[in-house]
Amino acid sequence: MVSDRGALDDRTAPETRALVEFLVSTTSSDLPDEVVNESRRCLLDFLGVAIGAVDEPAVTIARRLVRTLGGEPQTRSLGTDVRLRVTDAALVNGIAAHALDFDDTHVPTILHPTTPLYAASLGLADWLRRPGRDVLAAHAVGYEVAARASVALYPEHYDAGWHMTGTTGCLASAAAAARLLGLSAAQAVHCLGLAATQASGHREQFGTMTKPFHAGHAAAAGVLAALLARDSFTAAPDPLQGRRGMFSVMSPAATVADLVDGLGKRWEIFNNGVKPYACGVVIHPAIDSVGRLRDEDGLTADDIERIELNVSPLVRELTGKLEPRTGLEGKFSAVFACAIRLIDGAARQSAFTDENVRRPDVRDLMRRIILVPTDAVDHTKAVASAVTRDGRRLERRVDHASGTPENRLPDAELSAKFHDLVDPVLGPRQAAELEALVWSVDELDDLGPLMLAATPQGR
Amino acid sequence: MVSDRGALDDRTAPETRALVEFLVSTTSSDLPDEVVNESRRCLLDFLGVAIGAVDEPAVTIARRLVRTLGGEPQTRSLGTDVRLRVTDAALVNGIAAHALDFDDTHVPTILHPTTPLYAASLGLADWLRRPGRDVLAAHAVGYEVAARASVALYPEHYDAGWHMTGTTGCLASAAAAARLLGLSAAQAVHCLGLAATQASGHREQFGTMTKPFHAGHAAAAGVLAALLARDSFTAAPDPLQGRRGMFSVMSPAATVADLVDGLGKRWEIFNNGVKPYACGVVIHPAIDSVGRLRDEDGLTADDIERIELNVSPLVRELTGKLEPRTGLEGKFSAVFACAIRLIDGAARQSAFTDENVRRPDVRDLMRRIILVPTDAVDHTKAVASAVTRDGRRLERRVDHASGTPENRLPDAELSAKFHDLVDPVLGPRQAAELEALVWSVDELDDLGPLMLAATPQGR
Repeated sequence: MVSDRGALDDRTAPETRALVEFLVSTTSSDLPDEVVNESRRCLLDFLGVAIGAVDEPAVTIARRLVRTLGGEPQTRSLGTDVRLRVTDAALVNGIAAHALDFDDTHVPTILHPTTPLYAASLGLADWLRRPGRDVLAAHAVGYEVAARASVALYPEHYDAGWHMTGTTGCLASAAAAARLLGLSAAQAVHCLGLAATQASGHREQFGTMTKPFHAGHAAAAGVLAALLARDSFTAAPDPLQGRRGMFSVMSPAATVADLVDGLGKRWEIFNNGVKPYACGVVIHPAIDSVGRLRDEDGLTADDIERIELNVSPLVRELTGKLEPRTGLEGKFSAVFACAIRLIDGAARQSAFTDENVRRPDVRDLMRRIILVPTDAVDHTKAVASAVTRDGRRLERRVDHASGTPENRLPDAELSAKFHDLVDPVLGPRQAAELEALVWSVDELDDLGPLMLAATPQGR
Repeated sequence: MVSDRGALDDRTAPETRALVEFLVSTTSSDLPDEVVNESRRCLLDFLGVAIGAVDEPAVTIARRLVRTLGGEPQTRSLGTDVRLRVTDAALVNGIAAHALDFDDTHVPTILHPTTPLYAASLGLADWLRRPGRDVLAAHAVGYEVAARASVALYPEHYDAGWHMTGTTGCLASAAAAARLLGLSAAQAVHCLGLAATQASGHREQFGTMTKPFHAGHAAAAGVLAALLARDSFTAAPDPLQGRRGMFSVMSPAATVADLVDGLGKRWEIFNNGVKPYACGVVIHPAIDSVGRLRDEDGLTADDIERIELNVSPLVRELTGKLEPRTGLEGKFSAVFACAIRLIDGAARQSAFTDENVRRPDVRDLMRRIILVPTDAVDHTKAVASAVTRDGRRLERRVDHASGTPENRLPDAELSAKFHDLVDPVLGPRQAAELEALVWSVDELDDLGPLMLAATPQGR
């Protein structure tokens, strides 16, 4: 067995080489506090969406199957007391975190980076007893690696039909795993190659359980890649930029300069979006615009004669359901999401229930909300024009929905989203303990206490 | 959990629908004897190349890693007494069977179908106690599914840089696994979708351990896909032909008619090639041409003044080494491979040793073999022109190398290849027992005896 610890191969292209050196050499203390803080916020959001999906069919089926296959009890399926080997935990926790379509997004490329990053790294760090600050650093650095590869590939790669989270998601998990395993630069090239060559996931699968499977698969692929590379498994020296490598095979027009432009100075993690509403991101500006009528103008459902929503044509195309019959269908109904936001003040996961879509007060308001698709409104914006029963006209415009990089979700909102998802699984008290551990995760010498807090009593 | 046993979804395109119905409905008795016989021959060849690679670094690293990860002892790593869960066995046995680049080939598309087919199905059938005839049928039918998808995608898909065995190899393993698990047609669509969306593997990785990893990954992906689909995991209704499905995402010019043209009447398995020589297929016609000078004209090394080999320019490009220093380098030396074939009568795995490339008699003959690259000779052909020391001129032309579909390898040659690979691992006696079990595998009620015979004493 040949050891490949040592210098990078001359055949690795300069941009990939620089990215790999950044990956393995950046220390926790090199990372700006604001970056680490974003990674901490991403961890809270990840745990919320993963634990909140603990009973989703895609998750329960996958979890049952990997238990049948068996493995060493190296870490846990989040939100359960089921112990799994690290590759299986990455798969199951990755499926869970994407199952509600509620995980965070690298807005410029529609990659969901945090899901493969933490689905891979939490289990690995738990198993290897790595400290919390290393997990945050692995997220922050891995986010850069995967987001930059995504920028290099976007939009042609996505337009061709690839699901970013299944493709560059493999690089995300591999990068995080490479750090936690302490790979050398040479090993990290093999690791990224093993991950790149597993990149997969067709957008045809959107709308099925196989969409979140892509995220879980990416997480597991990265863990496997890093473990193999640590054990001297070899891969090609130029896996991304080589003639038959990931970029040329999977995009007609990759822009490699994006891998390194401002690397270590400009952080892609500040382009992260966190969803406040448990439905397609395209409706979020409209929900916000209606929310402002409530929160800032004090309107109630009873006040409203009619609301016209000037929105991108995409909104009606993707979320045009006027008579949703189930909570799930409610996620594809802009008028339901706006109505529940105005009446109940929120549109979190717990709002999208079969009961809520049938509520007479909600139904009544839904009929008074009119979608007006127009090319004049970009898909990131919306304008709500209300006519009240007492004859007033009010207008609220949203240019950047809450949770977007330009309008970051406050920690309190992030916390509320977390509790909405996690309290039903862990109970409010244990959820609060878990949240507190996340905010101070830098101080944990290993993830044991955090993983324990993510395990409900009696499940 | 919704059961999806039942009719096929209307949205499944007609060709995919027909292929899936063929996959799940074809019975053992529908299969022509000649087809089943090819599948039996493929099984012998598969076991040979997989067991012969038992100590290859790519195999030992992967096997050690999956043992660390752990799992239920559902089946075995071939050629060892290591018990693995079925997905891990598919991975490790798939890596093994491709590690020597000596496994069989669907000649029109350069897919190596048997590796993912049997790497997936042997372990699954062993675990599920399925009879030998079902394993053969799963190979025969799965071969058609994967080879036809490959024909539909070839050559644009391959030219783009995809490694067929990693891509349509996923469909091969999924198809075989779907049959062994008894999936309904509707489940089989989900299974193929889950497999298609894991299709991956860049040709950039050729020449590294990651090339055989692609084959193992494909085998494991198909097993996972089938197990998930059996448990009601859902995927898109039109995974291959849909707008964002495998064919449109992974090829600019897929020809879907190839999926069904003559299905069940014309069998792609008759386009299977089996390598008699343990080196790149491009040298095989030349080795054969020299072999005929020996076997048919009775020439020995001492008789030969000079041999000119008229070959495709590819031969010198890919295998032009004149002074190989190791057995591995010998695989890239046409003159070595031809010399050892003429002197020793064979160029099997055991011929490519460090000792053989240094043998004075071999070196001496190598210097008298001259490569004459010419565009006039297609890469499937070769002409050897010998001048003997007593002044005779002899010429032997090969239009179809032995082991190609037009010049099938006789069972005796197949058996000799198997023993060359397996005897060093299992010993000749146990290897003979294993071979006998393969020839009568149809009669086995389960694979227990065969798997036991593939396990050496004391390893």
